Amino acid sequence: MTRSELGVGVGQDQDFAAWYNEVVAKAGLVEHGPAKGTMVVRPYGYRIWELLQAELDRRIMDTGHENAYFPLFIPQSYLQREAEHVEGFSPELAVVTHAGGKELEEPLVVRPTSETVIGHMMARWISSHRDLPMLLNQWANAVRWELRPRMFLRTTEFLWQEGHTAHASKSDAMRETMLALDTYAEVARDVAAMPVVAGEKTPGERFAGAARTFTIEGMMRDGRALQSGTSHYMGTNFARAFDIQYTSEAGRLEYCHTTSWGMTTRMIGAVVMTHGDDKGLVLPPTLAPYHVVIVPIGRGEGAEQVVPGARELADRLRGAGLRVHVDDRPQVSPGFKFNDWEMRGVPVRLELGPRDLAARAAVLVHRLGGEKEQVPLDRAAEILPGVLEDFHALLLSRATEFRDSRTATVDGWDDFAAAVATGWARAFHCGSSACEDEIKAHTAATPRCVPLDGPPESGPCVRCGRPNEYGKRILFGRAY
Amino acid sequence: MTRSELGVGVGQDQDFAAWYNEVVAKAGLVEHGPAKGTMVVRPYGYRIWELLQAELDRRIMDTGHENAYFPLFIPQSYLQREAEHVEGFSPELAVVTHAGGKELEEPLVVRPTSETVIGHMMARWISSHRDLPMLLNQWANAVRWELRPRMFLRTTEFLWQEGHTAHASKSDAMRETMLALDTYAEVARDVAAMPVVAGEKTPGERFAGAARTFTIEGMMRDGRALQSGTSHYMGTNFARAFDIQYTSEAGRLEYCHTTSWGMTTRMIGAVVMTHGDDKGLVLPPTLAPYHVVIVPIGRGEGAEQVVPGARELADRLRGAGLRVHVDDRPQVSPGFKFNDWEMRGVPVRLELGPRDLAARAAVLVHRLGGEKEQVPLDRAAEILPGVLEDFHALLLSRATEFRDSRTATVDGWDDFAAAVATGWARAFHCGSSACEDEIKAHTAATPRCVPLDGPPESGPCVRCGRPNEYGKRILFGRAY
Repeated sequence: MTRSELGVGVGQDQDFAAWYNEVVAKAGLVEHGPAKGTMVVRPYGYRIWELLQAELDRRIMDTGHENAYFPLFIPQSYLQREAEHVEGFSPELAVVTHAGGKELEEPLVVRPTSETVIGHMMARWISSHRDLPMLLNQWANAVRWELRPRMFLRTTEFLWQEGHTAHASKSDAMRETMLALDTYAEVARDVAAMPVVAGEKTPGERFAGAARTFTIEGMMRDGRALQSGTSHYMGTNFARAFDIQYTSEAGRLEYCHTTSWGMTTRMIGAVVMTHGDDKGLVLPPTLAPYHVVIVPIGRGEGAEQVVPGARELADRLRGAGLRVHVDDRPQVSPGFKFNDWEMRGVPVRLELGPRDLAARAAVLVHRLGGEKEQVPLDRAAEILPGVLEDFHALLLSRATEFRDSRTATVDGWDDFAAAVATGWARAFHCGSSACEDEIKAHTAATPRCVPLDGPPESGPCVRCGRPNEYGKRILFGRAY
Repeated sequence: MTRSELGVGVGQDQDFAAWYNEVVAKAGLVEHGPAKGTMVVRPYGYRIWELLQAELDRRIMDTGHENAYFPLFIPQSYLQREAEHVEGFSPELAVVTHAGGKELEEPLVVRPTSETVIGHMMARWISSHRDLPMLLNQWANAVRWELRPRMFLRTTEFLWQEGHTAHASKSDAMRETMLALDTYAEVARDVAAMPVVAGEKTPGERFAGAARTFTIEGMMRDGRALQSGTSHYMGTNFARAFDIQYTSEAGRLEYCHTTSWGMTTRMIGAVVMTHGDDKGLVLPPTLAPYHVVIVPIGRGEGAEQVVPGARELADRLRGAGLRVHVDDRPQVSPGFKFNDWEMRGVPVRLELGPRDLAARAAVLVHRLGGEKEQVPLDRAAEILPGVLEDFHALLLSRATEFRDSRTATVDGWDDFAAAVATGWARAFHCGSSACEDEIKAHTAATPRCVPLDGPPESGPCVRCGRPNEYGKRILFGRAY
């Protein structure tokens, strides 16, 4: 196997998009499916998704939501009931026109999102204020036709959770909207080691049919922004379209306020582009299919001695709750294995040769580099959990420093253009969509969000000089 | 709320189909979706599915399989590559003809099952005997257009796992086929408390494209059979259609032998129809969203006293690993709650009133009836796990007795017809499909399987008198 088959053939700085495509394929995460824009998520990639699912699902359940499952097929007329919603999604729909050997009387849309069908059902289930809040979540696939598909980031079919809730009041629904956003920010930080900026989308970037859209934005290693989770307050838009009404304690018939929020398989791409390097993936421990790979050293007889030792070590580490793999493939060299697991982003490698075994120690190599360390076999199970905690903390601080170093607070146009060429700009904006369009035409940058945590400030729009709209600086960047 | 709204309006003996439809709706498991034949799985029903998934997934992973995810959309031409496969599935396909606002050049089939797309990918991934066996599993939705949909049993869209494996030899693939079947039989017995008959389908009942199809068949309380999981040995049929080849140790290019196997949301219907009664669902503890519901007794001030006691008891039981719900709804009576949780099939109810609390005991009521028992609060966490184990054992033995009482070993036609009118017949058969059709035309019964465990025997065909084909009696019954 040649070097280019084994390692990454192209560096991040050379061609980030090519680097990404190569890494997700070579690390065994994903391949193109036969139908345009579809993906095959391979076991190593799917395991990352399962680990993310478990972390996110637990938090969603702990905050009182229940999982359910709604149909994949939605009558076309349902989408048309909410005017903005159908306008936003129409260009992306996949439509079933024939089934069971016949043409259907009404075409069925393959769900691009489930507000409409869930709205229809909520209207049946909700009658009294006692039925509220209704807090539902669904794990499912969804389909949006993509003109320029990219694995995980924009695929015709993707996997996600979509939360859908109904509430008696605006304040209850807004509290829910922000709870979901907080959950996403927490999962990004504590699970994916991604520092994100949480904020509100400007009107032009809102979800089709939403009154307010909130987002978490992560910075990828090419300086671009990736929207990594969104939470929407729908007002009473869908409640009016689907007659989701309840009788209040005072006996009045009222419309519900609804929300929806989603996080998708795109998060796998986010992890790749936040932490990866020229050797391949770097996985935060919580999402790593294997925390530790043990490589027995020495071919032939040498290897035969150490493989049982490696297995014993693996069992000890598993006893401490770690996910461990012993790479005992006889047909490939240790060097090949080192590169292979570096490509796959395993946080820690333990090398175990005959002399190590005699000395009752293994050699620990971090995925992020640094000195090799000796780890006594008897203490490995005690030491490794801390090593992994530090690994997560290091990823998070490294990514935070990177993001901050590529984020500039700017007032002038030239500084703005320079900032968004390599990262993000915090700047004042007038709020006009024509001005947003002009900024995009000149720099390819768009408003990512109005950050929740910025201080109140005011100043002239960075582009047109008119007064700022948002009472604070907003975040601009080129986006995926 | 009237009696008919609360309890089951129709008995199993009156109209089993109507009983089923009423129970799955009133217990909050499922409702019809807006598109024909689709279902909305409500939280209580979906929780049963999640519990079944966890049990089945663990067993699939423990036997060396890996989860992955393949596209929902399959180019129509892929299905046509295996002649029997396309013939079998064509009448059931849903087809996407338009996407992204345009007509597609090649229509996309919404997966009815994934042999074709997975076969296509396996051909890319497998080159050497070292790549074998390849053991994949997918949790997904699938679509088969149904003319007579019934919730859970036959729905246009269903949820399932589909295992797909490739092997170097027939014997390896057959071992895998039987391993999957054993896993299904074990899950049916140990998780769903369903005694099933495992066996092989006759050629006329085989999966489209399979060389051999195996099944587990459960008996529902109306005496009908429900196919509850199937496992297929494909021979080299799909390997030839998709070029799944490997180089053997001897250096020869060989076709793989493949398998596939699936279990679906139909299992929820199986549980309902195996254990349910005229009060509603009866859930085996492993699949029960709540093992125990605690109902505080006494309205107003009385209830206020006992609710904290009920919560304390719930916490103790949760500490013992039980799933517990305290029903403290103030607006409904204890009697309403008793009926409600009986409808929902909760195995054990604990009633706690002011006098019980003073005596430090709760009243235990089994879903299956019998004497009420006093359970000391201090010992409840110790006693309940055993109560639930016994509950599972009782369900299993009750269902086994029912099945055996409705299964007759018959040689004559009249006895056969009588047996399949209320249950199953074990009989000799000639193996001719014309004779199978005749039996079906007269009795509505079909061959369910050639049981794996029947003794070798021979005799004349129960219908036509010709010699038997299978070397043992086979199982006939009316089926869902």
